[in-house]
Amino acid sequence: MGDTATVLPVPAPKENWKSIAARKKAAQTAAIPKEWVITLPEATRLNVTGVPAECGLLSARELEITELKDIVALLGKLASGEWSAVEVTTAYYKRAVVAQQVVNCLTEIYIDKALAWASALDAALAATGKPVGPLHGLPISLKDQICIEGLDTVMGYVGWVDKPAAKNAVLVDILLEAGAVPFVRTNVPQTLMWGETFNVVFGRTVNPHNRALSAGGSSGGEGALLAMGGSPLGVGSDIGGSIRNPSSVNGLYGLRPSSDRIPYEGSVNSGQGQEAISSVLGPMTRHVSGLKAFTKTVLQAQPWTRDPYCIRKPWDEASYALAEHGNGEKLCFAIMWDDGLVRPLPPVRRALLRTKAALEAAGHSVVDWIPPVKHAEMRPILMSIFGAAAGADVLEIVKASGEPALSTMDPSKPPQDRVDAPEGGQLVWRRDGRPDPTPLSSYEFFNVCWKKREIQRQYLEGWMATKEKTGTGRPVDGIITPVGPYPAPPHGNHIHAFFTSWCNALDYPASVFPVTVVDPQLDLPEERTEFFGPEDEKVHELYSSPEVFKDAPINLQLVGQRWEEEAVIGMTELVDAALAAYK
Amino acid sequence: MGDTATVLPVPAPKENWKSIAARKKAAQTAAIPKEWVITLPEATRLNVTGVPAECGLLSARELEITELKDIVALLGKLASGEWSAVEVTTAYYKRAVVAQQVVNCLTEIYIDKALAWASALDAALAATGKPVGPLHGLPISLKDQICIEGLDTVMGYVGWVDKPAAKNAVLVDILLEAGAVPFVRTNVPQTLMWGETFNVVFGRTVNPHNRALSAGGSSGGEGALLAMGGSPLGVGSDIGGSIRNPSSVNGLYGLRPSSDRIPYEGSVNSGQGQEAISSVLGPMTRHVSGLKAFTKTVLQAQPWTRDPYCIRKPWDEASYALAEHGNGEKLCFAIMWDDGLVRPLPPVRRALLRTKAALEAAGHSVVDWIPPVKHAEMRPILMSIFGAAAGADVLEIVKASGEPALSTMDPSKPPQDRVDAPEGGQLVWRRDGRPDPTPLSSYEFFNVCWKKREIQRQYLEGWMATKEKTGTGRPVDGIITPVGPYPAPPHGNHIHAFFTSWCNALDYPASVFPVTVVDPQLDLPEERTEFFGPEDEKVHELYSSPEVFKDAPINLQLVGQRWEEEAVIGMTELVDAALAAYK
Repeated sequence: MGDTATVLPVPAPKENWKSIAARKKAAQTAAIPKEWVITLPEATRLNVTGVPAECGLLSARELEITELKDIVALLGKLASGEWSAVEVTTAYYKRAVVAQQVVNCLTEIYIDKALAWASALDAALAATGKPVGPLHGLPISLKDQICIEGLDTVMGYVGWVDKPAAKNAVLVDILLEAGAVPFVRTNVPQTLMWGETFNVVFGRTVNPHNRALSAGGSSGGEGALLAMGGSPLGVGSDIGGSIRNPSSVNGLYGLRPSSDRIPYEGSVNSGQGQEAISSVLGPMTRHVSGLKAFTKTVLQAQPWTRDPYCIRKPWDEASYALAEHGNGEKLCFAIMWDDGLVRPLPPVRRALLRTKAALEAAGHSVVDWIPPVKHAEMRPILMSIFGAAAGADVLEIVKASGEPALSTMDPSKPPQDRVDAPEGGQLVWRRDGRPDPTPLSSYEFFNVCWKKREIQRQYLEGWMATKEKTGTGRPVDGIITPVGPYPAPPHGNHIHAFFTSWCNALDYPASVFPVTVVDPQLDLPEERTEFFGPEDEKVHELYSSPEVFKDAPINLQLVGQRWEEEAVIGMTELVDAALAAYK
Repeated sequence: MGDTATVLPVPAPKENWKSIAARKKAAQTAAIPKEWVITLPEATRLNVTGVPAECGLLSARELEITELKDIVALLGKLASGEWSAVEVTTAYYKRAVVAQQVVNCLTEIYIDKALAWASALDAALAATGKPVGPLHGLPISLKDQICIEGLDTVMGYVGWVDKPAAKNAVLVDILLEAGAVPFVRTNVPQTLMWGETFNVVFGRTVNPHNRALSAGGSSGGEGALLAMGGSPLGVGSDIGGSIRNPSSVNGLYGLRPSSDRIPYEGSVNSGQGQEAISSVLGPMTRHVSGLKAFTKTVLQAQPWTRDPYCIRKPWDEASYALAEHGNGEKLCFAIMWDDGLVRPLPPVRRALLRTKAALEAAGHSVVDWIPPVKHAEMRPILMSIFGAAAGADVLEIVKASGEPALSTMDPSKPPQDRVDAPEGGQLVWRRDGRPDPTPLSSYEFFNVCWKKREIQRQYLEGWMATKEKTGTGRPVDGIITPVGPYPAPPHGNHIHAFFTSWCNALDYPASVFPVTVVDPQLDLPEERTEFFGPEDEKVHELYSSPEVFKDAPINLQLVGQRWEEEAVIGMTELVDAALAAYK
């Protein structure tokens, strides 16, 4: 001090966003052990789900481990020590890295950290003879927004590279305490507000069943990873369909709970502070048993003691056993054949018909769902809420880094041409029928919320009124609907999200479950001359050649009443069993 | 058509707001049967709680009925038919009308309609031998925002006169089905956003214990009516203290539940669509047993089947029995002696000391509450949320009718001088430390909500961390705090609401319960020279003459964790019993 000359630090020249993105991607590639690098299949090969078994990296035992889809069975083997946490984590890590090489589904790869967790679990089991918790040894993949201490959470933004999280998200702590191994993080679209998965840091995730098709979004990395068998169970998030859409196009089970049951605290997101339609976390998995295993475990950890928004509402076993739904006997489901905006394509209609027949064969009844509120009336409310701030948070982030704010998922335009920093806030979630990107005042926002509430009331009233026509003495037990009007679309062609988003507007819990896959011989294009509107026509035209959609999975959605997660899980198991029995 | 001359209706000249207000008030007066008009006590008489017994209108039996404060005991007599619904409703109606004549606590008076409901209940009991529901025959008063089909809901606005409701609020339907008789509606301040009760339609409600003092607000009509024994149980609403403040200054029990347990659907309110800090409905009553009777009944009616915002969370008897709080044995309470903004006045401090001693005598322990977040930091968040729209909805209403938007509750200024239609939106809920009445954009609002969430997280974390110092192995079971820094203040002097509002910001359930009354001999003014700030000094100065507050009740508040209504009720009964045993 005093006689020392003050030396001002010279600021380093600001690194270009492309350089940051390339550096991050290179680091990701470098995180893959050389001996885990496989010989890639031909670029023209569309269905790559067979690659893990063919590539030679996984041993027979590792293939056996990663082919056991039933989560309860897997947990049994882990709890007994028949399979160690380290070998299960290693097997899944290898398979995840194989998946990464063919469908580009990962973000953070941190093998040592994951294996250290697994090793500690094995040591604990050896020392005590008891599993650490209900998810002992289960590798769990997490969407790249669920923070893990010391790791980046990029969420598709160059501007978030090199900003490791100071602490775990509450959900990560709960999963670790339950004995799970959060072993890998998965790719997302920038902002999360897309039904496909691309960003300028990690690139595009593609569909393992057909790489020319979308992996869905925004939990598209999860969807593709799971479809490759690279994870037994993952966690996605959903504010408009972001769990259900990728679960569906990848042929998985998924659950979007109602708001504020699964702890969001400590995860990042777009639109933070917008609480009228909340993003929620939920499970994605290859076997229906994963939905309960995850949800019950998280709720039993009393998340309300750590997340101030989590409702103090424990796991309800009676609700899961369908105590309020005839104990699972002779339920009455309603089927929504279309949403008045778009008519689902032939393979989706075939899935609906098949599910109806399977349920009737299992002794349940099925009626048509007539929405008490037109979905065309509901959608502008949701779009106004999502667009209220005209993407102000997104613009702040991209302006700081100079990276583009993506305005399309169409791969025919290279990313750098896609730069469309939208001064007027014309971001993706405002394009759909919303010509006006003007931000709302808080008073205008409150008025939109009030309209939403009234629509929620009308929908509830209409649902309760179905008591008169079910023959069960109860209102319709669950509503079965398409997840989207189409199978996984070609990249850049996700057009219609409202088969999922209406559940977000009403905050209904909803699962998705696989029913079939596109069969170009069976699912011939329809002749149509009349359409609900241009959107409907566009979807129809998408299906001019069924061969494009070969092997694409077709899922359906099951919707329950608000905050009835347990019953939705119970009903999903019931529908899944009915479909299996019908085969 | 065609050859008939078109006659345009001549619009009637618009009626002046004063004329509408006078007409409505005259109709109210006219609704009182002539034989129920009493000889008024002298205007200088302050404590009028004895008037119902003295005035001669009520028979001995009617006095007996209306003096039975225990709700469970009253329900027992009604269920057995020992007391008929008609006689109980009649007795309470008479007493309510007496109250109206001395403290001006009512809005809608509809004796025939109420007695018709009561009569139908008697007939049903006679026919079936069974009570209609758990609240069979119980008269319930409702704040003038809870709509009843065919009746006005004025909510302090001239502009809402002569607009009868098309249907019942969901709560009213539930209460009717439970056998209750919603027999009268009670006065409020214009907008409901005040801690006192005055409007230009029905005038000012005063405190029965001392008519020179405030009846509190915004459920001040309820508070005054109940303190007069004019109702066994009422329903108020609370977004910043509006159940707890009037319950407290009138010496009653009251419960502010967390959001979305008691159905709000079909009730009107200010700030509709603002869902970050929600107004909630809750019970106010003279006996602690009323809290459970009301809450359990409403939750057992499964309000989530009618109100889309009601959480699917049934009444939890184990929680009420304090299963998560040592089954009611050896609890550890924390006492918040001040909030860092204002030091409570001597009678409030005496109540805190007394409650501490009573709890310790009952075998519980008591520690000091050190707020994990400074309340001074929390308050601006709450004020920003309440003021986000700068009162736009209020301005729309008052501009349409020409009535004044009240800017003070000070009776020294006649209402017409008080007109202060605030072009800049400088409405009451913005004055408190908020110099800037500029409305927020939705993005600014979201950012405030995000800050609120972070404060909720910090508060929860701090609460959970008290596990280390309670000696029970649990975090602090409940927090005991002042309800306000003062007893009922002289009209126009409600200065500090944050002893209640912090629970709204955090959405904690909170009850209030009576402890003592001001004793000018015991509760001498303190000598103080140092203050937290000007607000603290102002409160101190308010108490220069304790005689001003003679007979004013002193209540305290018990705060539980979010969505823990049942446990808060259970703990309130426990504290009430400890206080009774300590006498």
